[in-house]
Amino acid sequence: MRNIKVTIEYDGTNYCGWQTQKLQPESLTIQEVMEKALLQVFQKKVKLIASGRTDSGVHARGQVANFRVNSKLSLDKIQAALNSYLPFDIVIKRAQNASLNFHSRFDAASKTYKYFILNTGTPSPFNRRYCLFIPYSLDLENMEKGAKHILGRHNFKSFQGRATRSGNSIRTIKGLSITRKKNLITIEVESNGFLYNMVRIIVGTLIEVGRGRFNPGYVKQLVKAKDRRLAGPTAPARGLCLMRVNYKNLTRIN
Amino acid sequence: MRNIKVTIEYDGTNYCGWQTQKLQPESLTIQEVMEKALLQVFQKKVKLIASGRTDSGVHARGQVANFRVNSKLSLDKIQAALNSYLPFDIVIKRAQNASLNFHSRFDAASKTYKYFILNTGTPSPFNRRYCLFIPYSLDLENMEKGAKHILGRHNFKSFQGRATRSGNSIRTIKGLSITRKKNLITIEVESNGFLYNMVRIIVGTLIEVGRGRFNPGYVKQLVKAKDRRLAGPTAPARGLCLMRVNYKNLTRIN
Repeated sequence: MRNIKVTIEYDGTNYCGWQTQKLQPESLTIQEVMEKALLQVFQKKVKLIASGRTDSGVHARGQVANFRVNSKLSLDKIQAALNSYLPFDIVIKRAQNASLNFHSRFDAASKTYKYFILNTGTPSPFNRRYCLFIPYSLDLENMEKGAKHILGRHNFKSFQGRATRSGNSIRTIKGLSITRKKNLITIEVESNGFLYNMVRIIVGTLIEVGRGRFNPGYVKQLVKAKDRRLAGPTAPARGLCLMRVNYKNLTRIN
Repeated sequence: MRNIKVTIEYDGTNYCGWQTQKLQPESLTIQEVMEKALLQVFQKKVKLIASGRTDSGVHARGQVANFRVNSKLSLDKIQAALNSYLPFDIVIKRAQNASLNFHSRFDAASKTYKYFILNTGTPSPFNRRYCLFIPYSLDLENMEKGAKHILGRHNFKSFQGRATRSGNSIRTIKGLSITRKKNLITIEVESNGFLYNMVRIIVGTLIEVGRGRFNPGYVKQLVKAKDRRLAGPTAPARGLCLMRVNYKNLTRIN
């Protein structure tokens, strides 16, 4: 028995996220498409474990998943075979042997997301699937000031789209940076865990700061208030991309 | 009467090129969509002149067109109104007042195209519409050596997809560069004019050089031979983008 770790890149535009929502059983998910490819390659049902779900329309450059399989195929062949069965918008970038007890969700120490904003006078036909287009000017300095109040360990209830079963909404944001390169603003967030819609509500809030609707100090009150209604709107899915899943114990992966 | 010069960006994936081919009257072209938007903005038929056609599936970041119109609308309003009627994959980046005798095709001194090649082990779900994916290694030094034989004034009959009416296939390639940035190879070509499929056949030929099927010296013979059958294949449209149309007499545009 082997445990294979795969790194996956996908354009989420045409999918209802990683995993099927119970409310939309008819919609296509990335997990389903992946499991169909696994079935074709290994000729039997293979259970796929991902680092976590991504929402409908969200993209990934470094989603991680693992599966246990009894096969002598080389890693290169497994990667090539899966890619040959996958559609053009889902690609296995890497396949590695992991130790048998490696679990892509439980072993994840943190995840890094990026949110892309195209900030210029006219939209781009090329980036429209992967960026939020904002034609008005944004004050990056103020956005950075606001972001400082989000960094660190907090109860992120104000930035939670809907309650989780556990009810625990304390998370630690390890990194939050805002950079501009020409017309492209990138907001990078690293956290040990994310609540539902958390990055998108953080981004929606920072945009309100950037356009002057919220002042940076308001973000501090907002974190304390633990009230979703006081935060900015949920930014659209298309600007969001799961960049990396970070694992503590890298030595466990061969 | 005013003469408006517009700079247009488009994702050509879903269009049969700039102008309708007689063989495919039912297919949607960028010109048609543009002229429909002009009709809606100015409430009458407006003739649109472009710097030249682009083929089916080819993109543009700097296509130029002009139209004569009797209107007092400001340039900003013309641009915004057109963009509001255009689909998301066609965008007016700029509108300028041109002198009445400015003609976007006849006045064009040269055009610059770029061809993008994603040169890495696995394809990308994000660039698939805008790049040719090549997983095998390419010898850029040899490609550059081959490109030197294409630079300058030549009869480019070997790089012509089909005969034009005039039969004149002499053109001057003013610039031809090949650069690599990480996994992305960009071939930039500037010429005073392009024959049908010329850039794509040049790229297809240079790829054959890069992978070792042609040696760089063969390109010199190929130019002399004036025989399309001896060149490489026509590279796919999706990697090609019209970057800029260069006008000599910039003072004519206000």
